[in-house]
Amino acid sequence: MSELCFLPATELAALLRRREVSARELTQAHLDQIERVNPQINAIVTLVAERALAEAAAADEQFAAGREVGPLHGLPLAVKDTHETAGIRTTYGSPIFETHVPDRDELVVQRERAAGAVVVGKSNVPEFAAGSHTFNPLFGATRNPYDLSRTAGGSSGGAAAALATGMVALADGSDMGGSLRNPASFCNVVGLRPSPGRVPTWPSAAPWSTMSVQGPLGRTVGDVALLLSVLAGPDARSPIAIEQPGSLFAAAMDSDLTGLRVAWSPDLGGAVPVDREVVDVLAAQVGVFEGLGCSVDEACPDLAGADEVFRTLRAWLFDLSLGTHRDRHPDLLKAAIVWNVDEGRKLSGADLARAETLHGQLFHRVREFFGRYDLLLLSVSQVVPFDASLEYPTLVAGRTQQTYLDWMRSAYLVTATGCPALSVPAGFTAQGLPVGLQVVGPHHGDLAVLRAGHAFEQATGFWRRRPPVRDP
Amino acid sequence: MSELCFLPATELAALLRRREVSARELTQAHLDQIERVNPQINAIVTLVAERALAEAAAADEQFAAGREVGPLHGLPLAVKDTHETAGIRTTYGSPIFETHVPDRDELVVQRERAAGAVVVGKSNVPEFAAGSHTFNPLFGATRNPYDLSRTAGGSSGGAAAALATGMVALADGSDMGGSLRNPASFCNVVGLRPSPGRVPTWPSAAPWSTMSVQGPLGRTVGDVALLLSVLAGPDARSPIAIEQPGSLFAAAMDSDLTGLRVAWSPDLGGAVPVDREVVDVLAAQVGVFEGLGCSVDEACPDLAGADEVFRTLRAWLFDLSLGTHRDRHPDLLKAAIVWNVDEGRKLSGADLARAETLHGQLFHRVREFFGRYDLLLLSVSQVVPFDASLEYPTLVAGRTQQTYLDWMRSAYLVTATGCPALSVPAGFTAQGLPVGLQVVGPHHGDLAVLRAGHAFEQATGFWRRRPPVRDP
Repeated sequence: MSELCFLPATELAALLRRREVSARELTQAHLDQIERVNPQINAIVTLVAERALAEAAAADEQFAAGREVGPLHGLPLAVKDTHETAGIRTTYGSPIFETHVPDRDELVVQRERAAGAVVVGKSNVPEFAAGSHTFNPLFGATRNPYDLSRTAGGSSGGAAAALATGMVALADGSDMGGSLRNPASFCNVVGLRPSPGRVPTWPSAAPWSTMSVQGPLGRTVGDVALLLSVLAGPDARSPIAIEQPGSLFAAAMDSDLTGLRVAWSPDLGGAVPVDREVVDVLAAQVGVFEGLGCSVDEACPDLAGADEVFRTLRAWLFDLSLGTHRDRHPDLLKAAIVWNVDEGRKLSGADLARAETLHGQLFHRVREFFGRYDLLLLSVSQVVPFDASLEYPTLVAGRTQQTYLDWMRSAYLVTATGCPALSVPAGFTAQGLPVGLQVVGPHHGDLAVLRAGHAFEQATGFWRRRPPVRDP
Repeated sequence: MSELCFLPATELAALLRRREVSARELTQAHLDQIERVNPQINAIVTLVAERALAEAAAADEQFAAGREVGPLHGLPLAVKDTHETAGIRTTYGSPIFETHVPDRDELVVQRERAAGAVVVGKSNVPEFAAGSHTFNPLFGATRNPYDLSRTAGGSSGGAAAALATGMVALADGSDMGGSLRNPASFCNVVGLRPSPGRVPTWPSAAPWSTMSVQGPLGRTVGDVALLLSVLAGPDARSPIAIEQPGSLFAAAMDSDLTGLRVAWSPDLGGAVPVDREVVDVLAAQVGVFEGLGCSVDEACPDLAGADEVFRTLRAWLFDLSLGTHRDRHPDLLKAAIVWNVDEGRKLSGADLARAETLHGQLFHRVREFFGRYDLLLLSVSQVVPFDASLEYPTLVAGRTQQTYLDWMRSAYLVTATGCPALSVPAGFTAQGLPVGLQVVGPHHGDLAVLRAGHAFEQATGFWRRRPPVRDP
């Protein structure tokens, strides 16, 4: 197994620039790693080894010829299988698209390729990214690298598991209800749900919606910032694109946290049940922020209405984006999606008006909270990685969960606030299962969140603990 | 009558800075003008003469003391009566709020005051700014300065009429379906519907909505740019605020239009009926753009779906924002508002999903159109200013109009595109009624639209033709 595959992407980028490794060698090392561990993990569901090697060779030639190369030059990357890739099968995890090969790259993939990334394949997802456990009838479940009997989380589950096992240096994902955060938490990697508009999305079924966002995953916060520097920045194809350039995230993340006011509330003031093991792991690490010079209070914003906002807007967007599939192929969709679309179909205009009114009130309450605090720390997930054979955990901290969404509240309530949120490795349970800390910042505060996560990572180093995956 | 009252605000600002006039003198001159002409026009419905003079005196003292003053230092300004003003009655044109005195300024007013503007009073509006003819049971109708028997347009009708008659140097307004554009067109002044988020709105019943925007009116494009430079720029209280600073609009508007590709379609390719007189006035001026070095084609984007988008989202927002009044005080609302709220109440989630899908498709079609053209020219209003005793024109170019919204299509279809749009004076009918040209630019292209409008204004000078209002 090549040690290269576990270096941070930022270090690999430096090695490539110093010509200590070639893009082709690096790509081959990752393809070898995929061959070794993917059969156990099932993270990469479509592999384009030949094409990746050819692209890596071309990148090497460009670099050798002295041409300028992008910030991701030669870095092996996995694209989430819900993101369109020209000439590479894109299934959305659905039998409906089993053989679908798009003829264009979507915007995030265009940016990754333009920056020099080498796309090695597509990462596994739940059907249409619905739910935070990665399984589907085409490819089955993605396994947690720290315990193969458990879930890698989702919906960017293939991405997180591939990163944790050194199959790729970087991966992209998306997040409506926690899909960049839960899998990062479950796989001991880093995932950022950026502010809506930070990473412009195109194509998009609902271009103004702030619910679903695309974003980066990596093994370190620096890697996530590197990928974000490429994914972020305005594009005329997204009407909500934030105008700040991606270069904002290209600088070193080192930052002094002295004097920051940190709020800590693992269960959002009791609003969500959180398993004891999760709280224990996180509570042991909160002192790290005090050690970094922050003041830490037990506090959280009042998230009243956030549940209704998320549930209503999600159901509405499911009908909007998947309603046609639900009508044409109800037999080819999992029941949870049919249910979620049908929930959307029950909505009246008045229901949506009520949700949007609550959404606005929530925005302002959270904005005022971030006048008093710089950061909010909470659990990413309410549970540890659960049995991969379950559809979802039906019991959390002793409380019964009725639907596939219930256990995701600690992530999806944050979605409703519109704030950026990072999942950063924060330790392990006694069983050796990873637990992520959710670092939430004010609106558009992506940089502040990354800097805090970086300082925490530097102080703790949990990302260095590799999964116990062995060569078969 | 003081000639000062008809100078551009930019010139008045220069006179103030050169100490050739004081803020107090300028305010007094405008108060005198209000006293002379407002009884005929009915544009200013709440006057705060004493407070304005005291503020002007304080501004003079600050300036005399060598303190830095803002870009609107000493300029008399009217605030639309739908905008909250601390300590000044704010009625929304509704009997429900006949005696309502807010305890805070809303964001645009905060910015105007911080920039040194002297608020002289509130400008008349239709009830809750609904409809493009300014009349309400509290104050009656605002009269067109060019023909007192006709409407000044709306909903920023008081603002436009006050500017046309020299009662104020600047005025703010708002625009969902044409409310910054129609009154500018009808009163021979300039109004800009900025890109959504350009002028952050707070408070807002629907902070993410792109339908209703606030913006500037003035007698010249330069004046509108001056006010926009103060109103624009990010604020954390609006989640859709564009991050570009207002200073973008503070520079001179002079610009070379040579080589610009201009599309011209007075009736949007036949999509809307437009009165012959309006088309004739505008058609005579299109050559000005050729004279400025532009190429001009007859062309317009396909606005299919825009009508459904606007009607659906408007009705939904009416229920969201006015539904409570409709329930509590149906007797105190005009029938058109009750109807529009009730239209909103008929909507299903699926209706809104369909509208939002069409909205997205429209966004991309228009974006692609502005890849081929730099500007789109069309009529602001489909009609000339109509009889003020009508609720709305029921016949346009021989076609019957069913509702109070129908005749506003040439303005409200542009709203649905999300593009910025300027109304700039473009001439007069044989009867002496003003006609505005609508200059539409690409998304976020507010500066391009202002520059084109400025060049057109410099070449034509219609703004100089004063209304035939005489001292009583």
